[in-house]
Formats: sequence, structure tokens, C-alpha cells
Amino acid sequence: MRTVEWINGRVRMIDQRQLPWNFTHLDFEDYREVAQAITDMVVRGAPAIGATGAFGMALAAYQCPTQVLGDALDYLEVAAIILKKSRPTAVNLAWGVDRMMQVAREDVYRNTKDMLSAMIKEAQTIADQDVVINQLMGKHGAALIRDGDVVIHHCNTGALATVDYGTALGVIRTAWEQKKKFRVLLTETRPRMQGARLSAWELHQLGVPFEIIPDSSAGYYMRKGEAKLVLVGADRVAANGDTINKIGTYMLSVLAKENNIPFYTVAPTSTIDLDMPTGDQVPIEERSADEVRTPYGNALIPEEYPVRNPAFDVTPQRYLAGIVTEHGIALPPFKESLARMVAANSTAKVG
Amino acid sequence: MRTVEWINGRVRMIDQRQLPWNFTHLDFEDYREVAQAITDMVVRGAPAIGATGAFGMALAAYQCPTQVLGDALDYLEVAAIILKKSRPTAVNLAWGVDRMMQVAREDVYRNTKDMLSAMIKEAQTIADQDVVINQLMGKHGAALIRDGDVVIHHCNTGALATVDYGTALGVIRTAWEQKKKFRVLLTETRPRMQGARLSAWELHQLGVPFEIIPDSSAGYYMRKGEAKLVLVGADRVAANGDTINKIGTYMLSVLAKENNIPFYTVAPTSTIDLDMPTGDQVPIEERSADEVRTPYGNALIPEEYPVRNPAFDVTPQRYLAGIVTEHGIALPPFKESLARMVAANSTAKVG
Repeated sequence: MRTVEWINGRVRMIDQRQLPWNFTHLDFEDYREVAQAITDMVVRGAPAIGATGAFGMALAAYQCPTQVLGDALDYLEVAAIILKKSRPTAVNLAWGVDRMMQVAREDVYRNTKDMLSAMIKEAQTIADQDVVINQLMGKHGAALIRDGDVVIHHCNTGALATVDYGTALGVIRTAWEQKKKFRVLLTETRPRMQGARLSAWELHQLGVPFEIIPDSSAGYYMRKGEAKLVLVGADRVAANGDTINKIGTYMLSVLAKENNIPFYTVAPTSTIDLDMPTGDQVPIEERSADEVRTPYGNALIPEEYPVRNPAFDVTPQRYLAGIVTEHGIALPPFKESLARMVAANSTAKVG
Repeated sequence: MRTVEWINGRVRMIDQRQLPWNFTHLDFEDYREVAQAITDMVVRGAPAIGATGAFGMALAAYQCPTQVLGDALDYLEVAAIILKKSRPTAVNLAWGVDRMMQVAREDVYRNTKDMLSAMIKEAQTIADQDVVINQLMGKHGAALIRDGDVVIHHCNTGALATVDYGTALGVIRTAWEQKKKFRVLLTETRPRMQGARLSAWELHQLGVPFEIIPDSSAGYYMRKGEAKLVLVGADRVAANGDTINKIGTYMLSVLAKENNIPFYTVAPTSTIDLDMPTGDQVPIEERSADEVRTPYGNALIPEEYPVRNPAFDVTPQRYLAGIVTEHGIALPPFKESLARMVAANSTAKVG
């Protein structure tokens, strides 16, 4: 089953908040509920919410009450704004929604039914391409993992963070399928524990050996020479290579550099935002303090204590050894290499 | 009330596992229960377990079944071994127990009652001195905090980590009593949440403005220029200045250096171990995986997922701007300055 998919006029998602305890899914019949589900992190992970945004737009077209094409377009414009606002940091969400609006705006439809068909098809194409792109990144990135390695991985970047297969965890999966022998240290990833709950759930199923570690202990394994490689995903990559990713990524990158351990970001070109010159212009989402105080209903910290909860941080490009994309591994200087990777989209036929 | 104290033949401790939800204390009538309470972290914090080890020895003398001095000494030798084994990393525990054994071994007692009196007096002296030493460190260290500063603090180093007043948090307390205006970012300190539960509880009572942050976000506040200073405690300081402290301290020190933020350890000379040439010889305690999986009974991670839980890490001396002791601030090169601080104990009269 895919993280998100289209089932007869509904958008179906795995409810990731229930994992690893319960594997359940939720169906949505209103794009506004899809937007809320993105905000509430029923679904998360930059590529996954990119596809979810696309399916949300297909749903908006499906539920659109008018059969006048111009009015339908107005309806979709509003839906696009609402969906894009559901989370601010990952660029894939805007990318997916914008790609759907391009299809909606094409001047080729006889009626709204035609437009709806084209939009459902486009959303499914986005989803299908995501899986193919992840498998390509897996192939490129797997070369980075050597027998005997211990790989540090942050947050969740697996099948659950994408439509299927994963980005950084997809690289790990490919290397495992290539019969390489290695272990993974999964940072638990406070506050929402995506490493300990989602990545662990995925690696457990794949049979990849792993251990969960508190985020603050990653440096301990680097300094003692145990960890050999760091692989992370990204929510947005700026034109200069600065990487915005889950809070704690910056910490890992600095520790990796200090200990001469290569640090790679794994991200499809849909995550690269050439309009953003550096990472410091990217909006960093602040989420509810309750995520820290009361994770999944467990009261760890009293309500009255003030808490801050930025969901992402910026890793300056100088800490990155490279960025694995579906077209290969971009190396420094990133301004040039990333522009080449994005340009490859117009020539390459993926999926 | 003190973290640990002697009440008529019993050792009384605040049960820190219940904080901040419940303020309760436990009484112990057997030194073996005191050792278990140290292992179980009813009491924690290097200076606090140093004093607890001393009170544990007083309790062993109190409960000793023989009135033959030589036999009593044998009984105490066993008690010393059991108490010292209750936690391996903090040197203060061995320091407190050894200081009690020195008193026990003095060849001046007419009977075991005399010896018991001397031991109770010594344990109380250790406890009283701890408070005075902390206040002295507070005075020396408070000069490091300037108006407008944002101070990052890790774990708990306050009244609860000592007999009273605290080490790094004692410095913060003194600066606050000096009417300086500043804020504190308390790392929550996974897995046991000492920052979010104990340090927050203390600063809340003192009225010092604070915010709790996930451990992995400390670098975010450093890089954006908000944090200006890092203050931590120590469980052991090696002769060369390498500092063993709560897991995550190394991470903070590397991030601080990378962002040109001064990083200071606050530790009494009882924490300095001149017999340990560098930090890498110090045993690092591995604690139960359940602390990470099920903190305080809250099931965050399934039982079947493997977890690693080292309780401490080593911060190499090159990351430290200085080490605040009761005799002043030791500066690099630490081999010389720390030896001077320890030597000052034989001339200084503290308490």
C-alpha cells in the first residue's frame, strides 16, 4: 500500500500518527480535510506531502460544485492556496500543487469532466514518478554505503515520507537489496519520534539491522569512530545547496564535519528550490509546544512550562559532501551542480 | 529542604523521579537501599551522589551489627564497595565514600559509637561544604553572564543535582540574584528529561525566565545568534580538562565552538580526577533501553526495537573556554590550571 493514493473520489492515507502501534488508513472526501491532515501530520515527509497536495487538488476538482470551466478554475485557485498553506517549509507541497494548477489551466478541456480526468491522471503520474525517482536515488546513493559501515540516519525518509520506497532510507534499502552488510543508527528525532517510530518500523520490516539512539548521542558514535556516514533527507534545498530539513540536521552536519564523516542529503529535484538563493530565506515552521510536552498524549513536561518547537533547521551547504538526486550526486560547488540536476528534468524522461 | 540529608539514623532524599509532578521524599534505613536509590536515580547529579555516598556510609556505620572496631571497619569496607559500584561515571561518589573511609580508618576511636559520631559529622560536613562550594562557584561563574544573554544549559545541575544551590544552575541563580537580565534555554535532556523536568522546576520556582528546547535544536539557537553562552556541569573532569558529562554535552561543545560561543563547565574540585589523564579512560555508564523507550512509563517506542542508551559522553578539553571551580575559573592549559585548583584545597578553608 502507498502512503497516499486516490481511491474512487477519495484520498486515502496511512495515518502515520498511529504507527508503529497501529497500521490504519484514513479516507478524505474534502480537500480542506486533506490540508488539515497535512497540518496535523497524518502524512508527512516532503515528497509525500508533495503528492498529497496533488491528490488534494484532484479531490478539489472532484468535489467542485460548478460545471462552468472558469468557475471551476476559481474554485481550484482557492484550493491551491489552502493546500499550500497547510505546511510552510517543504517546497514539494507547493511544487505538487502548482504542477496540478498548470494542468488545470491548460486551455484544452471541453468540460469540467475532462479537466477532472486530466487532473486525476496528473496526480497519479506525480505519485508514480515519485516512486521511480526514489528508486533512482537509491541506485545512485547506494554506492556511498560500504560493507561494514554504520550509517546515521535522521527522522523518517522512507516509504512513509514519500509515496513509496523513500529518499535517504531508500538509499539504505537499495544498499540492503544489494546485499551490503551494514547497520543503521536511527536518531529517535524528538519531538515527534519519526526515527524511533516510523524509520524503525520500516527497517524492522525490511530486516535491516538498526538501533535507535537519542538525538543528542549521535556525536558520541561519531567521535568514537563507530559511525562512518550520515544520510538525511530534505524539505527544501536552496540554490546554493543549503539544506532545510528536520530540526537536528544542522547538529548532525556539524558533528560529522568535526569528525571527518561524510554527510549526504538525499532529495529529488522537486525538493530543490532554485528561486531560494540560500537557506536563510526559507520559512521555518514553528509547531505546537504540546508536541514536545505531551508527545502522542504522554505527559512528559507540565503544561505551564514554556517550550519552543521549531520543526526544521538550516544546514549550510559547506557541511554537505553531496546531494543525491534522481539524476546523480550533486557535488560542490552546488550552485552549478544543482542547476544541472534541475535542468536534467527537461531532457530526462522519468517514469 | 536538601536533596539528601541525615535524619536520626535515616537517609532522607527527595524522590527526583516524581518531579515536577510530585514533591515527595523517601527515607532509607539500609545503606544497600541507598546504593539502589543511586542506581535507580532517586537522587542524581555528581555532587548530590557524592554526598549521598557519604550519608550511605554513615548509615552503614549506624546499622553495623558489631561493636568490635576492627569488625566494624570490615563491614564498612564492604559498604564502600557496594556504594561505589552503584554508578560508575561520576567521580564524586567514590570521592565521598573514600573520604568517609578515611575518617573510619583513623586510629582514634575508643568504640564504634565514637566512630559513628565522627562519620555522621563528616557526612554532614561534606553536605554543608557542598552548599558553600556551590555558592562560591556561583560567584565566580556569574561574571560570565551579561545582561541580555541567552544561556544554554543542559541536563540538571541545580539544587537537585547537589546538596543545595547547584553548579551550572547555581551560577545562573547567582547571576539572577545579582539582578542580571537574561534568559535560559533548557535542553530537555533525553532520555530522562532532567532539563525539562528538574531544571525547569527549579527555574520556575526561582522566577528565572526559561524555555525548554529539544536537545537537537540547541544548534539552531546558536547558529541564529540567539544563544550567547553554554553552561554545563560535569560528572568527572580528567587531569587534562576533558569533561565527562550527560550525553549530549559533547554535541553542545562542538556546536558552540563552531558558532564562536563560549562553553564553560561548572564543577567543584571534588569532580576533578587528577588520576585520570584524559576523558577516554573514564567508564561510560550504559543504562537501560527502557529509559529511552518508556520514559516514566510512557510508551514512546515499542519494546522490540533495539535501543542504545549511553548516559554520558566525553567533551575534549579543546572545546572548553574554562572550568568554573570553587577556587576560581580554570583556563587552558587545563593540566596546569586544574592541578592548581585541586592544590588550593589543602590551603583553602571552605565551609
